[in-house]
Amino acid sequence: MQLATSPFHHTVVVGAGAVGGFYGGMLVRAGHRVTLIARPLHVAAIARDGLQLDLAHASGVEAVALQASSDLSVLRDADLVLFCVKSTDTESLAKQMAPFLAPHAVVMSLQNGVENAADIAAHIAHAVIPAVVYVATEMPAPGYIKHHGRGDLVIGTMPLSRLQDPHHTLQQLVELFATAQVPVQISPDVMSELWFKLLINCVFNAISGLSQMPYAKLAELDSVRVLQHAVVHEVVAVAKADGVQLSEQTALQSVAKIPITMAHQKSSTAQDMARRKPSEIDHLNGFIVRRGQALGVATPVNQSLYALVKLVESGYSPDA
Amino acid sequence: MQLATSPFHHTVVVGAGAVGGFYGGMLVRAGHRVTLIARPLHVAAIARDGLQLDLAHASGVEAVALQASSDLSVLRDADLVLFCVKSTDTESLAKQMAPFLAPHAVVMSLQNGVENAADIAAHIAHAVIPAVVYVATEMPAPGYIKHHGRGDLVIGTMPLSRLQDPHHTLQQLVELFATAQVPVQISPDVMSELWFKLLINCVFNAISGLSQMPYAKLAELDSVRVLQHAVVHEVVAVAKADGVQLSEQTALQSVAKIPITMAHQKSSTAQDMARRKPSEIDHLNGFIVRRGQALGVATPVNQSLYALVKLVESGYSPDA
Repeated sequence: MQLATSPFHHTVVVGAGAVGGFYGGMLVRAGHRVTLIARPLHVAAIARDGLQLDLAHASGVEAVALQASSDLSVLRDADLVLFCVKSTDTESLAKQMAPFLAPHAVVMSLQNGVENAADIAAHIAHAVIPAVVYVATEMPAPGYIKHHGRGDLVIGTMPLSRLQDPHHTLQQLVELFATAQVPVQISPDVMSELWFKLLINCVFNAISGLSQMPYAKLAELDSVRVLQHAVVHEVVAVAKADGVQLSEQTALQSVAKIPITMAHQKSSTAQDMARRKPSEIDHLNGFIVRRGQALGVATPVNQSLYALVKLVESGYSPDA
Repeated sequence: MQLATSPFHHTVVVGAGAVGGFYGGMLVRAGHRVTLIARPLHVAAIARDGLQLDLAHASGVEAVALQASSDLSVLRDADLVLFCVKSTDTESLAKQMAPFLAPHAVVMSLQNGVENAADIAAHIAHAVIPAVVYVATEMPAPGYIKHHGRGDLVIGTMPLSRLQDPHHTLQQLVELFATAQVPVQISPDVMSELWFKLLINCVFNAISGLSQMPYAKLAELDSVRVLQHAVVHEVVAVAKADGVQLSEQTALQSVAKIPITMAHQKSSTAQDMARRKPSEIDHLNGFIVRRGQALGVATPVNQSLYALVKLVESGYSPDA
């Protein structure tokens, strides 16, 4: 069931972890052609059993048959690239994928942090569309995607977009994902949306990671609330110095809701730390520290969280 | 070999953990009469095998025969009490010991934090002598004291001391411990010494605890150094507001030395957290936060460390 109306005939997911696997799987379920680029371990599991999609609100696990490869040359045939690697791998993979991209290909960055779209664009000549990803998903085993909720995206154009007709392309993406029951909203100011998500990540990821605690536990202690509010305050100040207006009040409201709506979830940083894998902390609290330094804004609390996560990570063996 | 010259005929150690066990053991080795008050598990081990003293710079483990009890009534016969419980237990044990203390008994507080001597004194009518403890020791098994180094004490009088002749009593204590090869220095300003040790604890304990890293690892990361210097700065500011002059420069020099002199050590907070036991954080960074609030001094970095340790501890089961 290839949908003839979509201009996107082949979507390639670069970095098919919990996020990339989810969106790739959703598109395949809707009849689209998708190839996942993933590590050999995942490719082998997907080749054998299909992608196991354990969707929230669904009963049971669905095996989705799709192509998977560890070879970036499959990008030659892609007209849409979902770029879903960890921020730590952005530069390296953007460079590696550059020689294979077809001239008309559109790249979407489905990543945390506010720098990724620009970092990708620095290595390719193509349009890069930043997406803010709102999904709770994890990959507890190779080829197995456990989805806890949501899945919606917010997209828009980055400053100096290379799109000929931005609205048209964004609308095509909305329609593509709509066929897969993935709500996509177009934002006139997607960078602010990315900053807002970054703020939320800065408030929850390191704390959940260092304590290995789910979000509901964080809300039980006044001292943790004080810590989180200090993070909000610092991120809002850095954003403002960077020309991005974030509402501290709105942020505090969101921060208060997450321990209720995602009570039993731990952060992606917590998942990384539990597996002794490097986290994205350099692109979360670490980014705030760097931007704060560049812009003359003090960020002692973000710096503390950053330092503690880096210290824990300094104990991981290099081949972990 | 009871030394007739000492006015202290029976020393009772309240809270015979790694610190209390060490000093009690050292006094017994020198021929003094000592009773340890400890939990039944430790009392049973000591009754069976003696106190196992594994001293730094000694070859092998020495078994020291001494009395041990879980019954506070042995305090009736004590003329010197070494009060060595965790700061979290100070109030409770001071209250419990009050009815048993002989009128002439002298109490020494060998504890972390700057509040303990006053907290003890609030519940008894006796003189309390604060001691700053410089020893690296741990208790890896019941009745087994592993000593890594040092052991010297700094003592002095707290404000509003109840000693009739403070210099005389302090000098008697110096002489008592001298017989046991424990160097004791009398300080005219022991509260500043306690504050200085508190500062060092605030800089190292929580960070080593949250990361489970030894001190040498902390010195490898610039971001951790920034974090530690922020802690120093805040503690010096709170101390100053509290009327205690600490030299930030001297503090930074001490902070720089510890990863060299105690490279492989982890903090007592790290040991507590590894065993999922409540730490003294309320009396370390938590105290700085409370004093800072009372005195109008901002302590965001101490607050962050405090909140993170409390969050981890909130996951311990109550009977751990």
